[in-house]
Amino acid sequence: MSWIYINDHFLEEDKAAVNVNDLAVQRGYGVFDFFRTRDNKPLFLDDYLDRFFNSAKTLFISLPVNREQLKNVIYALIGKNNIPESGIRITATGGYSPDGYTPAQGNLIIQQQPLIPVSEEKKEHGIKIITHEYMRDLPAVKSINYVMGVWLQKQVKEKQADDVLYVKNNLITEFPRSNIFMVNGGGKLLTPANNVLAGITRKKVLALAPEILPAATADIPLHELKNAAEVFMTSTTKRILPVVEMDGIKIGDGRPGAITKALYKLFTQMEERTIK
Amino acid sequence: MSWIYINDHFLEEDKAAVNVNDLAVQRGYGVFDFFRTRDNKPLFLDDYLDRFFNSAKTLFISLPVNREQLKNVIYALIGKNNIPESGIRITATGGYSPDGYTPAQGNLIIQQQPLIPVSEEKKEHGIKIITHEYMRDLPAVKSINYVMGVWLQKQVKEKQADDVLYVKNNLITEFPRSNIFMVNGGGKLLTPANNVLAGITRKKVLALAPEILPAATADIPLHELKNAAEVFMTSTTKRILPVVEMDGIKIGDGRPGAITKALYKLFTQMEERTIK
Repeated sequence: MSWIYINDHFLEEDKAAVNVNDLAVQRGYGVFDFFRTRDNKPLFLDDYLDRFFNSAKTLFISLPVNREQLKNVIYALIGKNNIPESGIRITATGGYSPDGYTPAQGNLIIQQQPLIPVSEEKKEHGIKIITHEYMRDLPAVKSINYVMGVWLQKQVKEKQADDVLYVKNNLITEFPRSNIFMVNGGGKLLTPANNVLAGITRKKVLALAPEILPAATADIPLHELKNAAEVFMTSTTKRILPVVEMDGIKIGDGRPGAITKALYKLFTQMEERTIK
Repeated sequence: MSWIYINDHFLEEDKAAVNVNDLAVQRGYGVFDFFRTRDNKPLFLDDYLDRFFNSAKTLFISLPVNREQLKNVIYALIGKNNIPESGIRITATGGYSPDGYTPAQGNLIIQQQPLIPVSEEKKEHGIKIITHEYMRDLPAVKSINYVMGVWLQKQVKEKQADDVLYVKNNLITEFPRSNIFMVNGGGKLLTPANNVLAGITRKKVLALAPEILPAATADIPLHELKNAAEVFMTSTTKRILPVVEMDGIKIGDGRPGAITKALYKLFTQMEERTIK
């Protein structure tokens, strides 16, 4: 069992609790972020902290710590837990609101877990996705609200798929927990420009891609994705994962593409440079 | 401080907590319901329990009690707390999910608080509302997700309004925590038919209205609301509350209407019959 940091205390996991009056329990209100460690070193921590503080600010949640204090706590937790390959989740709940509706000072929770690696089978053969008409509320914010994503899992399983892509007014947006990229027929890398969470892996891929091919953000109609040469998802946990089928239609030749593999290699090399 | 029931135990309010791994904290995932007591008697309890069990079922949350057991616990809590005029909230969180994403057995929480009555000023003079383009996810479900409603409070205050009405594709739907009704120029009572929570007060008003005027559910374009003779909201806490201004435009003559007042009287009489 790992240690959890909560409001100035390190507690054993089974003792880390919030009162039922917290706005997270009352109103599903809170923000979080999630990053990885490799060899006990956090990857791209400043990018994640930028996003976390922005999410909290947008949802009017005040934090009990500043950025330096938060960093110190994260490093202390990493030292205490010693889980070299891990995922770390920072949550700021809506807090204890006097009227049960107005955001208060957030309860700050930091949790660390061993990383569950993506299966080799999925990395090698790619995954199948379905689509669903939806857009997250306030998509630039990493809020804790995953009602739709959690609820759709049954449909994902029934259709023997691995994930669900949200589509809004015929434009693709994002997966519940990942961004999407495509290589179009002209050999250009594209990812949705609007109404998505600004993923950190997405940002790194956009920065690395020009070594291989031109890359841009754009509004992408669903039918363009169906005609893509390659499609992949990006996330902190999955890094870069090929998508080979959408709504029962094969993408390209139904196998992970060469550009997807090359970008995966570039990205892992970037990770390794970062932790050296 | 009142007693809280949580998973088979009655605890003092400050000791009622859920572990941070609960899906409510991790994913904002849970359902709830909220009813009133008068003179220590629950009002329309069966209607609320129907909705609560339906919400839990739709979100795949299994409950640790059946309907009879839940009723017994509610009556036991009412007896222990002795808060004759109260609001009781039943919450079922998404529970402790092994993968942090799939709903598990819900943690059941029952809380009772003294009722904060609506101000006489608002009852007498009515309230002002603004509108916002939005529809709740899975609107038939009373989920704990109020990210949009909580977030919009700043705009409501800035515009010196009291609440915000969600409008989707030019059709009015509901307030974050209340339903809406209008009396049109032809003397008919209307409330949105689709994409709203089936409010219990809404249901009772629809049942009572024919004593005074014809009533129906319908798709209501925003411009019809602007030309309404009377508008009011319904909710468990507010019962029936007149709306006299929308987006800076007066409704009718800007004062609570005669039909709104007559329905309020009928509704409170119905409450009194119920608890006798």
